[in-house]
Amino acid sequence: MSSAQPISSAVTPEEFADIFREHPGGVAVVTADAGDGPVAMTVTSVSSVDVSPPILMFSVSGRSSSAPTIRAAQTVVVHLLDTEDVEIAKLAATHGVDRFADTSAWSRLPTGEPLYHGTRAWIRGMTVSSMDAGDATIIAVQALETGAAEGKSAPPLVYHSRTWHGLGDHSKLDHPAG
Amino acid sequence: MSSAQPISSAVTPEEFADIFREHPGGVAVVTADAGDGPVAMTVTSVSSVDVSPPILMFSVSGRSSSAPTIRAAQTVVVHLLDTEDVEIAKLAATHGVDRFADTSAWSRLPTGEPLYHGTRAWIRGMTVSSMDAGDATIIAVQALETGAAEGKSAPPLVYHSRTWHGLGDHSKLDHPAG
Repeated sequence: MSSAQPISSAVTPEEFADIFREHPGGVAVVTADAGDGPVAMTVTSVSSVDVSPPILMFSVSGRSSSAPTIRAAQTVVVHLLDTEDVEIAKLAATHGVDRFADTSAWSRLPTGEPLYHGTRAWIRGMTVSSMDAGDATIIAVQALETGAAEGKSAPPLVYHSRTWHGLGDHSKLDHPAG
Repeated sequence: MSSAQPISSAVTPEEFADIFREHPGGVAVVTADAGDGPVAMTVTSVSSVDVSPPILMFSVSGRSSSAPTIRAAQTVVVHLLDTEDVEIAKLAATHGVDRFADTSAWSRLPTGEPLYHGTRAWIRGMTVSSMDAGDATIIAVQALETGAAEGKSAPPLVYHSRTWHGLGDHSKLDHPAG
């Protein structure tokens, strides 16, 4: 890792938040248990970093109640959501609720991590590196195991401007990708 | 930064790529010039990490022709795109072309970084930390300055399953965010 001294910025937190509120993100829920019970948090920061080895990243806010566990856990499960999974996204983004109260909605993998049932896809992985950025932490996870719900064909879930969206033929641009 | 030894993974590059191909991402173009001329690359990995100080992150593949410059540059410009900006996204994702051939499409900021004209929003920032992950590099950037095109109201641009999408009322879920 290389680091440079943070500098004072002319960009206010409000300006920065306003810009990123409009930047869309695919929705994921990260779960972990570092020995003190399961935690779950909804994030839009998950992306693929490399495929060989298979590595993804996400960030965890220092203000997240899940942050201490996510930072301490050696392994996590990253659930990638579709529109049928939106209730899981809402649950893991709601403050002050027991995100594991419905014991029919989740179980533990043989390796111990909490797994919500029925999401589009999930990846169990090991934290291979992390770095602090402000009060947040950026975490890189190498995939160890993956799974997917069978028979699902719902569109992927996107969060944008405080609203949930689903992609599909209706949202495709006329321009073909290329 | 903390690091753990990478382990051998049972997840193949193909499986991992298949899973993430379906995970949507907001589209951004990162530009920089470390003294050897301007570079631009299209990424779907940009997300906000913290707001105070204002920090964002993205990853750069080791296979990207822009990687050496992006890694070496002290500052970058992150352009956040809407559907009217899709040609810029395509340009900066196309191999073997001069991404700065159209000199009417970009100029330099007073601080020297290349800036494409007319994108929804842009953020000039300084790399404050970075870490390697596989052959890729994860970069954290503190915002120094922002700008936005005036009078634009196009929907944000999303990439999913090798296709460009735009969000709008048509893509909102019936479930209100909450």
